Amino acid sequence: MRRSEFEIGEEKIEDVEAFLREMSFGFLGTIDEEGMPAITPLNFAYVNQAIYFHGSRVGEKMRSIREQRSVTFAVAKEFAVIPSYFSDPLLACPATSYFKSVRIDGQAVVVDDPNEKALALEGLMQKLQPEGGYKTIDANDPDYVSRLKGVAVVRIDARRTVAKFKFGQNLKDVPRQAVEEGLAQRGAQHDEETIALIRRYCPHHKE
Amino acid sequence: MRRSEFEIGEEKIEDVEAFLREMSFGFLGTIDEEGMPAITPLNFAYVNQAIYFHGSRVGEKMRSIREQRSVTFAVAKEFAVIPSYFSDPLLACPATSYFKSVRIDGQAVVVDDPNEKALALEGLMQKLQPEGGYKTIDANDPDYVSRLKGVAVVRIDARRTVAKFKFGQNLKDVPRQAVEEGLAQRGAQHDEETIALIRRYCPHHKE
Repeated sequence: MRRSEFEIGEEKIEDVEAFLREMSFGFLGTIDEEGMPAITPLNFAYVNQAIYFHGSRVGEKMRSIREQRSVTFAVAKEFAVIPSYFSDPLLACPATSYFKSVRIDGQAVVVDDPNEKALALEGLMQKLQPEGGYKTIDANDPDYVSRLKGVAVVRIDARRTVAKFKFGQNLKDVPRQAVEEGLAQRGAQHDEETIALIRRYCPHHKE
Repeated sequence: MRRSEFEIGEEKIEDVEAFLREMSFGFLGTIDEEGMPAITPLNFAYVNQAIYFHGSRVGEKMRSIREQRSVTFAVAKEFAVIPSYFSDPLLACPATSYFKSVRIDGQAVVVDDPNEKALALEGLMQKLQPEGGYKTIDANDPDYVSRLKGVAVVRIDARRTVAKFKFGQNLKDVPRQAVEEGLAQRGAQHDEETIALIRRYCPHHKE
């Protein structure tokens, strides 16, 4: 596979991990019984450098994982739509969107250890509900013992992780400057953050 | 496959189509050269009841489509994280998130007709850039002819579409009422819309 100009290398692995800790919604890719690709959107937690998710023990998702353990998991967030007129007054071609995405290829492992299940679910709760308001999930707590048994938890053991953060790395100085100015003027929800990300990831950018 | 309680039936197909027209970011699921599941996040347009996306003619995405035409395409939007304490003062278990997701299984077809390519890309532009500011994409416009040749456009011919809109359909009246009240009190970005969606999709809800 060619290395994309948008790919994030090992030197910025902490950016990738921060993104995985921040996001709560991802897409599990599997191959179904008929050999067809399948995708399931789900909540996940990133705990001890692994992706965890949970679900019903009897659903389609678990069946396809038991049959075919090779999975992929994608997490992506769109930061800004970049209109063509930021850099071209006439043609539509430069229109694009800037986003972060991470894809993890690996093996799905059904977790049986109640302590690991509790750790994963507590990690998910800390992400979804950082304000608290619930009893900490503990494998030895009688309130949780049977509930932990009743839920399936899956860990993805990563074979390969590819992060693509697309923030104008392909642009020359003049159009990149034009995009930054367009974002600054527009001032939509993530535009200021997007400008900072353009600067962080563009190797040729001059401050 | 069991029919999920969150599945949207034919009677609300217009809700599914409106969602696909509104969203601009989706996840393409394929099977790669090694037989492993792969996911690519990308911008898409929903034009004439088909998903269209575009890309480089030489990248990994197009190679896997040429080799294996069966694909799946997922679009999802998280509306609200539902904290456990909305309905349970003690345990974490009811924590969840409400979301819309649509999954389309089908065959990917590389589009060669310049008029269809122009229609798909113009549909994408109308979504990404509804404010205009570009010359309409037309297959006969000399400014666009060679650019249209240079870009690959793919249409997904759907075999099966499954929409899952999860908005508390599994809840009994009392916890559902508690969730609605919690959302109304919290008042976060999509909470009011989420309350409306709970009411729209819950068959047992009493107004």
